[in-house]
Amino acid sequence: MVETIQWTDDGVVMIDQTRLPREEVYVTCRTYGEVAEAIRSMVIRGAPAIGVAAAMGVALGVLRSTDRFEEICDTLARTRPTAVNLFWAIGRMKKLYESLQGQPIEQIRARLVAEAQQIRLEDIAINEAIGRNGAELVPDGKTILTHCNAGALATAGYGTALGVVRAAIASGKRVDVFADETRPFLQGARLTVWELQQDNIAATLITDNMAGHFLKSGRIGCVVVGADRIAANGDVANKVGTYSVAVLAKENGVPFFVAAPISTLDLTLASGDEIPIEQRAAAEVTHVFGVPIAPDATRVENPAFDVTPNRYVTAIITERGVARAPYSESLRAL
Amino acid sequence: MVETIQWTDDGVVMIDQTRLPREEVYVTCRTYGEVAEAIRSMVIRGAPAIGVAAAMGVALGVLRSTDRFEEICDTLARTRPTAVNLFWAIGRMKKLYESLQGQPIEQIRARLVAEAQQIRLEDIAINEAIGRNGAELVPDGKTILTHCNAGALATAGYGTALGVVRAAIASGKRVDVFADETRPFLQGARLTVWELQQDNIAATLITDNMAGHFLKSGRIGCVVVGADRIAANGDVANKVGTYSVAVLAKENGVPFFVAAPISTLDLTLASGDEIPIEQRAAAEVTHVFGVPIAPDATRVENPAFDVTPNRYVTAIITERGVARAPYSESLRAL
Repeated sequence: MVETIQWTDDGVVMIDQTRLPREEVYVTCRTYGEVAEAIRSMVIRGAPAIGVAAAMGVALGVLRSTDRFEEICDTLARTRPTAVNLFWAIGRMKKLYESLQGQPIEQIRARLVAEAQQIRLEDIAINEAIGRNGAELVPDGKTILTHCNAGALATAGYGTALGVVRAAIASGKRVDVFADETRPFLQGARLTVWELQQDNIAATLITDNMAGHFLKSGRIGCVVVGADRIAANGDVANKVGTYSVAVLAKENGVPFFVAAPISTLDLTLASGDEIPIEQRAAAEVTHVFGVPIAPDATRVENPAFDVTPNRYVTAIITERGVARAPYSESLRAL
Repeated sequence: MVETIQWTDDGVVMIDQTRLPREEVYVTCRTYGEVAEAIRSMVIRGAPAIGVAAAMGVALGVLRSTDRFEEICDTLARTRPTAVNLFWAIGRMKKLYESLQGQPIEQIRARLVAEAQQIRLEDIAINEAIGRNGAELVPDGKTILTHCNAGALATAGYGTALGVVRAAIASGKRVDVFADETRPFLQGARLTVWELQQDNIAATLITDNMAGHFLKSGRIGCVVVGADRIAANGDVANKVGTYSVAVLAKENGVPFFVAAPISTLDLTLASGDEIPIEQRAAAEVTHVFGVPIAPDATRVENPAFDVTPNRYVTAIITERGVARAPYSESLRAL
């Protein structure tokens, strides 16, 4: 399996997700500023993966720059606003840094580097646990619909939603995957299909607007998606289009599962209305790989995420177990 | 305004809709076979427009080829299966042809050419009537969401859904338009935005998967779409993704209007389940303007249309008036 992100002596190495699937290119971020830019430009993306990247960015900043610790953390925190894992990872690094005050700088550096690598390893183990917990929920002999990429590429490895797919197949279930292409950034077409092909998991690509048609057809056994932030009441922010899939799943009696680590929970927010939604550049919508698909000067809206109210969510699958409504209680219990 | 399709001494002239908006190129079809190929390859598309094209194709075939009349009609009928206007137009030409049997061939030719031109002119008048009937249904001061292109380019002129937009604005309503990009063929991004820009109507482009988010936001006053075939019970076949928009509109209390000429009704079909759905080539999904967006050998589903059950349709706007549920009665009455 391809490695999404790794710590090396040269710096933080990531597979460039803007160039997949046509090219498998690895980029090495040698400064924390380069890590921040890689997150912003979506060289690396996916809530858990950018959490790992941010932690490694903090470690790299302390190891190699003379910038103030706060400045390093703030730069990394300003990259993307919606996925809470980013802030969770930076917060964890901050807490460790503060606990080490007074110790020799070499030791602080070594501990921060070790912590970032630990966050990466934990993430893989967490995804395997999510997979185990989710596998039993997946109907056998049907198709799993997923949106965006919540796979190995969105995490340190194995994946959240695609971790559930992998675990279901490992447990002997005969399932295949329908992947929404996920405009505008095409994470489904470019990343999910590619990643599943690497693992010989049968995947079929559809455009986002076909999901409803197939949910109505009876072919889809369940939907499994990832999450960028989950509020205390179980409202889920995830890649734009997730809300539509959730409504269409409910309308057609198809279970809609969210697979995410506990670090995606933001219990400080009462509901999804409080989750900040990133607006991205118009060019992502008007151009595909640099090719214009709309007239010049086209006005565009480009919210990168939407919020799915908890009433459409059948269950939230975490490494600590499966939460169901009422989420205000079940999420807090986890 | 650009002319979608015209009869000239050289042949049938169409603006090439596969090349818009980057290039405004007109193609001249000099044989009925070229008209058939233009329909198949979507140089011209949109249910009313391909009806006009088919009628002109029949006229061109009788005028210039020595092929049997049945062969001409069958070739044109085999181009695309879903939009019923194609078969309606061919049927109308057949009926006229049969009524002219025994007359001199020159006269038959002249009458068929005149009939095809008449169908084109009628279509424009029909769309203006649809616009008048629909304009009063559009909430003032809000945004109209549309999917695909049901505009001047999808008809002989003025448009069905965009005809309603034009008429609403002409009647003094302050509305703007959100256009779904409409993958895979991008009729929204390429055609609807372009066409509205020509008329200085404010249009904002969104990806298909954002429609739900904006329907939930309260910004959208109504949805207006066209149709490719409407069954006797009011089930509507239209561009894939229409069903999803309809469900999301209903879920959010937003009226969902279908604007279509009477020739789009197929009262021989009891329900939408009987409407044949065209499956198109995988390359439409895996490539955008020739640029690959997915791995090689990606498995694809590409239904070009979906069926929206009548319960999601607030009203069907025709040139003869507005039909509401129960459609089995209201459509037959029109």
